[in-house]
Amino acid sequence: MLYINNASTSSPKPEAVYKAVELCIRTSGMSSDRSSFVSKLDFIPNETRALIAKLINASDPTQIVFTMNGTEALNLAIKGILKRGDHVITTSLEHNSVIRPLKHLEQDGDIELSIVQASSEGLLDPNDIVPLIKSNTKLIVTAHITNVLGTTIPIEEIGKIAAQHNIKYLVDAAQSIGFADIDVEKMNIDMLAFPGHKSLFGPSGTGGLYIKKGIDLTPIKYGGTGNLSEPITQPDFLPYKYESGTPNTLGICGLNAGLKFVASEGVANIRKHEHELACMLYEELSTIKGVTLYGPKSPAEITSIVAFNVKDKNPMKVANTLITKFGIITRPGLHCAPLTHQTVGTWKDGSVRISAGYFNTKEHIDEVVKAVAAITAT
Amino acid sequence: MLYINNASTSSPKPEAVYKAVELCIRTSGMSSDRSSFVSKLDFIPNETRALIAKLINASDPTQIVFTMNGTEALNLAIKGILKRGDHVITTSLEHNSVIRPLKHLEQDGDIELSIVQASSEGLLDPNDIVPLIKSNTKLIVTAHITNVLGTTIPIEEIGKIAAQHNIKYLVDAAQSIGFADIDVEKMNIDMLAFPGHKSLFGPSGTGGLYIKKGIDLTPIKYGGTGNLSEPITQPDFLPYKYESGTPNTLGICGLNAGLKFVASEGVANIRKHEHELACMLYEELSTIKGVTLYGPKSPAEITSIVAFNVKDKNPMKVANTLITKFGIITRPGLHCAPLTHQTVGTWKDGSVRISAGYFNTKEHIDEVVKAVAAITAT
Repeated sequence: MLYINNASTSSPKPEAVYKAVELCIRTSGMSSDRSSFVSKLDFIPNETRALIAKLINASDPTQIVFTMNGTEALNLAIKGILKRGDHVITTSLEHNSVIRPLKHLEQDGDIELSIVQASSEGLLDPNDIVPLIKSNTKLIVTAHITNVLGTTIPIEEIGKIAAQHNIKYLVDAAQSIGFADIDVEKMNIDMLAFPGHKSLFGPSGTGGLYIKKGIDLTPIKYGGTGNLSEPITQPDFLPYKYESGTPNTLGICGLNAGLKFVASEGVANIRKHEHELACMLYEELSTIKGVTLYGPKSPAEITSIVAFNVKDKNPMKVANTLITKFGIITRPGLHCAPLTHQTVGTWKDGSVRISAGYFNTKEHIDEVVKAVAAITAT
Repeated sequence: MLYINNASTSSPKPEAVYKAVELCIRTSGMSSDRSSFVSKLDFIPNETRALIAKLINASDPTQIVFTMNGTEALNLAIKGILKRGDHVITTSLEHNSVIRPLKHLEQDGDIELSIVQASSEGLLDPNDIVPLIKSNTKLIVTAHITNVLGTTIPIEEIGKIAAQHNIKYLVDAAQSIGFADIDVEKMNIDMLAFPGHKSLFGPSGTGGLYIKKGIDLTPIKYGGTGNLSEPITQPDFLPYKYESGTPNTLGICGLNAGLKFVASEGVANIRKHEHELACMLYEELSTIKGVTLYGPKSPAEITSIVAFNVKDKNPMKVANTLITKFGIITRPGLHCAPLTHQTVGTWKDGSVRISAGYFNTKEHIDEVVKAVAAITAT
């Protein structure tokens, strides 16, 4: 089996992640922040916060709040900051984890929503945001790297625009954290939502939200925090304000090991390798007659994702042949991002997405190219 | 080390749970419901729903929705069903995961809240609920077994009262699922929230909510469901309506093994063993002069939790001596349940809680009794 679907989740994980999970499941039960016993494992959540803070240049680890996944982090940010009457600007390149919470708030009459249209290559001009700004614009939400095409949204420029207009800026870093450089200070990012199981190499069931100091969100969950049991209202400070109930200690142990792996390999090296594979794949697929490629054409704009279709074949069928005949695991369809496919012109069958990970090799790319060529020839 | 704090989380877990997690972390990455590859692991979430449904006599596994923990399940149920102007009845024996979401809704002026006072032994008379029912009473929320004292709330009687008055009934089964018999049909339970990591033996980061057919909740999170990507609004059917973002596959694999362990041992056998240990502990502690026991005195009312204090010693200090001098892990303090301690008269230092699990033995109880006797003698 050749797994080349790392935009869904990274696989394999580094051996250290497996080892951390195996150690944690057998030893973490006794402490768990809700007992009288304090073990080394009790320090892992805060160490993990510190590793994330360092990675994105947040000054204080308590600004990192753990969530079940990137989606929960986006919901906490969006629902937590918006009040009735606010206006929000987002883009046509967003995942349903951004679009759906916003659309439901709009449908309930709570907010107004503007969606900036990207180009059919999946590129966004930050200047297109400015004319949409209104006096009640409270929030701009964009991805950093888009999940269908892998295009990069110019978040630093958008951060500047947001800061100039005193608008909060929320970045969905699902496809970028651990791959692209992120500096929440320099980039004027107010909130950054991320999953733990993609380029941070943690297990699924992990994720988090960076919250800039001074930003106050309404929690989406209330409950026990394992300490501070006295008041019958939620503690009013981070991270406990937004973390209720027993945490996913097991997942956080794995994420901790994943973050250490990222730090030791270096984000730039990880990016260099994945980018090289994606460029190679794009170039070789573009020589196959009958293959239509989507997204950016220039190596400078390609990240780690390549999206394509084969002649008039349904992408589901192409992916199915890739798995059944060639043992290659990809992801076809709409990738939880219907607006992107409408933007690109691949609505409503979608495309086949191939996303190289750090453990993929040039030989894997050769294997994919040969398989796609064979499918195209039929 | 002797761990006897199973009301916080069960530890150790059955060997099969460790094995399931170890297998899952190394093999689940390739499928994860978001790729073209379907493996045996993809069937585990729905098999797990079926195991839970069977345990609580729910007719349809899709009525079981996975959450990050019991707290999230309670928040989904409470925030999902209540509308502005509704009245809610709960009890003075609830955990902060029930009290805090309700108190915040009350403080925001969204709901009215009545709290039924239990006796100082921690027993609740269901007839005390009836006079509090008003025309706008939408919801009754109670624990099944309380987390400080282990007292059982008569949920079947309360379910009857709720059904008679056309009020929805939400049960917090944090301390009961896997220990007590639960039949959502017979007991007229509309929603049942539960963690996966206590008596179901799963890892932390797991839990769920049973939702009776016909009950429509507003989700607390919106996003991608891994399929049904087309609409930019949330799918309107269970379980996807309430499950957004990449699930905690790893945790669910462990929970699956935990549920199979519960099924193979039998809830009645698990209960019999833990109840025997708790009764033995209660009886022996009651012979030590200087030990004050809280909660029910009769073996018929004791479950698996014993709460006590030693003379005028602070429970934190007693638990600290238990761990440092005797290697015994308990949980002191308020146990995220300040109202219970006010009810019992242990506000605001709380008590020491000892909660026997299925893997504890009579020798463990002897060890605890000797240690408490030694501490009391000082």
